[in-house]
Amino acid sequence: MKKNVLIIGAGGVAQVVAHKCAQHNDILGDLAIASRSIDKCEQIIASVQEKNSLKVPGKLTSHALNALDVEATKALIRETDSQIVINVGSAFINMSVLQACIETGAAYLDTAIHEEPNKICETPPWYNNYEWQRRELCKQQGVTAILGVGFDPGVVNAYAALAANEYFDSIDSIDIIDVNAGSHGRYFATNFDPEINFREFTGQVWSWQNRQWTSNTMFEVKRTDDLPVVGEQTTYMTGHDEVHSLSQNLDVPNVRFWMGFGEHYINVFTVLKNLGLLSEQPVTTAEGLEVVPLKVVKAVLPDPASLAPNYTGKTCIGDIVKGQKDGQDKEVFIYNVADHKDAYNEVGSQGISYTAGVPPVAAAILIARGDWDVAEMVNVEQLPPQPFLGLLNEMGLPTRIRDEQGDRALNF
Amino acid sequence: MKKNVLIIGAGGVAQVVAHKCAQHNDILGDLAIASRSIDKCEQIIASVQEKNSLKVPGKLTSHALNALDVEATKALIRETDSQIVINVGSAFINMSVLQACIETGAAYLDTAIHEEPNKICETPPWYNNYEWQRRELCKQQGVTAILGVGFDPGVVNAYAALAANEYFDSIDSIDIIDVNAGSHGRYFATNFDPEINFREFTGQVWSWQNRQWTSNTMFEVKRTDDLPVVGEQTTYMTGHDEVHSLSQNLDVPNVRFWMGFGEHYINVFTVLKNLGLLSEQPVTTAEGLEVVPLKVVKAVLPDPASLAPNYTGKTCIGDIVKGQKDGQDKEVFIYNVADHKDAYNEVGSQGISYTAGVPPVAAAILIARGDWDVAEMVNVEQLPPQPFLGLLNEMGLPTRIRDEQGDRALNF
Repeated sequence: MKKNVLIIGAGGVAQVVAHKCAQHNDILGDLAIASRSIDKCEQIIASVQEKNSLKVPGKLTSHALNALDVEATKALIRETDSQIVINVGSAFINMSVLQACIETGAAYLDTAIHEEPNKICETPPWYNNYEWQRRELCKQQGVTAILGVGFDPGVVNAYAALAANEYFDSIDSIDIIDVNAGSHGRYFATNFDPEINFREFTGQVWSWQNRQWTSNTMFEVKRTDDLPVVGEQTTYMTGHDEVHSLSQNLDVPNVRFWMGFGEHYINVFTVLKNLGLLSEQPVTTAEGLEVVPLKVVKAVLPDPASLAPNYTGKTCIGDIVKGQKDGQDKEVFIYNVADHKDAYNEVGSQGISYTAGVPPVAAAILIARGDWDVAEMVNVEQLPPQPFLGLLNEMGLPTRIRDEQGDRALNF
Repeated sequence: MKKNVLIIGAGGVAQVVAHKCAQHNDILGDLAIASRSIDKCEQIIASVQEKNSLKVPGKLTSHALNALDVEATKALIRETDSQIVINVGSAFINMSVLQACIETGAAYLDTAIHEEPNKICETPPWYNNYEWQRRELCKQQGVTAILGVGFDPGVVNAYAALAANEYFDSIDSIDIIDVNAGSHGRYFATNFDPEINFREFTGQVWSWQNRQWTSNTMFEVKRTDDLPVVGEQTTYMTGHDEVHSLSQNLDVPNVRFWMGFGEHYINVFTVLKNLGLLSEQPVTTAEGLEVVPLKVVKAVLPDPASLAPNYTGKTCIGDIVKGQKDGQDKEVFIYNVADHKDAYNEVGSQGISYTAGVPPVAAAILIARGDWDVAEMVNVEQLPPQPFLGLLNEMGLPTRIRDEQGDRALNF
């Protein structure tokens, strides 16, 4: 039984996390929000208050924090008496926040893999390069650390575990499909931090095929599926966190991730990439100023949080799983459909932030209740999926399944 | 009679100017090259020596200069005993170099209009905002200043003057067509300083139509012409320097400038512009660094000078002039075709730099000889075109004409 949550980060996902924690503060206790910019924390608190999201009267505080500073992070964990830390800040701070949790005993949750600013697309499996190097230490210290517990990675890992546990005797392939069929009405924008977004696509595309790491380039391999609600959609094989844990934790020969892109997105991306504007390596201007092009691209693009008020349409994210059950070939699609407008009305964020921000709160509730307080470092597929997906059914991200019996809601 | 030339700037155009000055140093005397980077000056000198471009033994020196510093520029003019200054540096330095010339009595030549870094596309006619404010002072001091004496502006202004003097009683329209049908083999590059290049296209497109300034947006108005050598070409109405002097100096109701662009160029430009990456106004990165996006784009694009070795194909630049002669409607196209490979073989630069760099040297020779040493500030159309075009016929940029009598070389 743990309580009191420290949320690190103050972007669109943090806003969802704050609202959802507030909606469950009877279980989660005090809430603290920390980021480099205390103003952004206070804006989130104002939004939580405006929407009356707190279930019961409780503490909700803002804090300025450089989360790369382990000592400062430890001090804040202790000052706020937080036993659960939800890290939804930049992907560059994972290892320092994790270290602070290990040293204070707080449970650690994040939604994306650690990255170093000057490195892109390192050797697979990516978790081996950073987080998993602390696995033994977490076990020794009895620290609960749940890695990648957003939607993808996160919920899709739970879908994979559910498929493996309930629907298949053996699995041939897991293809994770992520389609955003929404429209933000701007010339171009990314749905989360442009820096992290583009970094996903500029390196090699790693997939797990025939039990081997396979490398492709972005937009080299595509597929088209007829998906529930959003219809026929083309997606492209993309490097993504969950491939790097599912391939190691499940006995599945093929794990691939596919993301949907429109032609306009691909054109803009291609121009920027070919010009070198998505590079994480600094260039020097004629005036002698050293600058990372990708950071300038980020600076000119819309703040993803600013898209929320006018975002319409739906997302569809799920796992196409193929394998055998009772000697028969079988295929299921386990998925969620979320609506941008509904998300905005509930928590003031768009659907992409919503799908990423609700799951870590569900996980925090499971830690608070004890179900998932496992005293070690795990990826989501290593945990029982039912309590998690059951909570998400109630919290706004219901699970559905499409198989030979049709398309229906899944209850747990 | 003036002699000794100071070349300011050390880019691709300066390289052409240096070679061409060297080829005529019997008339022009000592040559000095100055830029912020003395290394680039020395590379040009090495190229001049490598190709044995000096006609007679003579001085050729390099100098580090911040040309925004009027006193330093005056000192260098005096130190090098230069009576002619060819300014082919950035468009931001025109006014300070001009001031240094006025205060030392040196003749001033440039190839592009003055610009302020933080302003784009000011009120027409552009020359009124900067250079022409020194017109009276030049006259009082007897200083020769020939503005915009590259190819366009420059040679095309002489073509317009020639048409007005020789081929028409009255002119209805001058349409200046600039087509680069060459290929550099790179994903994307600009043919001269990307910063200046893009600034031409991000503001309003000013044209002179029915004796009024008319505003359009870039790529809004296009035309297609069947041109000599390069064939059928689509060009787009573009704001350009020469429209701003020809409209004031010639009695012509319509003066327009048209530049050729391929679909790929337009796509890249459109993406960059719509994202805000061509802005001359600084943005602030998440890390707090203030940076001008356009300068970062410039930093990632190929150095235009680096395109020269692999550049193939031809340019076609000229004036389509329509009007009346002896009571008859008449149309002529006065033009030049230049070859990228020929330019590289002669002076180590590509064709765009060649067409821009040869004309100011021809003008310098005319000043040295006295023909164009007019002791006042003028644009090229205010000078007799024949000696200029005659020299260019010998110097590598021959003039041709296409009219009702066919397509032929023009001799002067």
